[in-house]
Amino acid sequence: MEENKLTYSQIGIIHSPHKSIEGIPIQPVGAKGIKAEIEIYKEFQEGLKDLEGFSHIIVLYDFHKSKGFELLVKPFLDDEKHGVFATRAPKRPNSIGLSVLKLNKIVKNILFIENVDILDGTPVLDIKPYTSRFDFVMDERNGWIENGLDKSADKKSDNRFR
Amino acid sequence: MEENKLTYSQIGIIHSPHKSIEGIPIQPVGAKGIKAEIEIYKEFQEGLKDLEGFSHIIVLYDFHKSKGFELLVKPFLDDEKHGVFATRAPKRPNSIGLSVLKLNKIVKNILFIENVDILDGTPVLDIKPYTSRFDFVMDERNGWIENGLDKSADKKSDNRFR
Repeated sequence: MEENKLTYSQIGIIHSPHKSIEGIPIQPVGAKGIKAEIEIYKEFQEGLKDLEGFSHIIVLYDFHKSKGFELLVKPFLDDEKHGVFATRAPKRPNSIGLSVLKLNKIVKNILFIENVDILDGTPVLDIKPYTSRFDFVMDERNGWIENGLDKSADKKSDNRFR
Repeated sequence: MEENKLTYSQIGIIHSPHKSIEGIPIQPVGAKGIKAEIEIYKEFQEGLKDLEGFSHIIVLYDFHKSKGFELLVKPFLDDEKHGVFATRAPKRPNSIGLSVLKLNKIVKNILFIENVDILDGTPVLDIKPYTSRFDFVMDERNGWIENGLDKSADKKSDNRFR
């Protein structure tokens, strides 16, 4: 169904020390101190004006190494299967990833970021300023993740989402 | 450059009381109590398993009424121009929107949501569980938004992003 297709353009690329899927932290909370760069293509550089005023940014990117998906998945944090939309698994109907990252500085079209859980070479879709006034809510219920949370900071990915 | 294109499929549609761009709240914080539904297409329904255990979800969607973009924009919250990536403006190089929404319940393939700042008919790209352990950071710096924040709860959109 062509009318259901949504097409976007890569606006940049992530240069990160995580060169392979295995062993990368599964969330920014487990990637404390890991530094990387986002290269925004020159044609979009002007769109970065005033972004440096924010300590954190939301990065949307494509899980370019994840092929296909299943609707029920066993996430890294649990041994039970959950619906893919109740997980942050990279193999999803639309392979879009989201991370809230610390922004250290911007030099021209390069964003220097920290706490990076993203693979080297990842295509970037969008950058948004993070503000706790818009993006933080007190979540009363954390579903199945509640049980796995204490493990998440140390948990590394394996190859199950390759 | 065809190799820079990323194509996704619509997985559902938002049914909301906001029928036109004018007058909708500009962020969920300004849309307290406004209810809406996300219809996930039947073929993806199984992927919703266990999502109801989360009080909040992250919804990624397409700003389907926003055409084109400029790299410098004057956002609703300010009278100065900022880089588009330092704003949440709908007219962006990739017209992807992000909202953190309250999830009240799920009945089959329908998600009943609250605090909705999204236009009726909006195509849905992805649903992710929200957890403050992954998605909340203490943002020390809020950039230009700092000045506009006190206005945001009452601020409504106008037609500048049509």
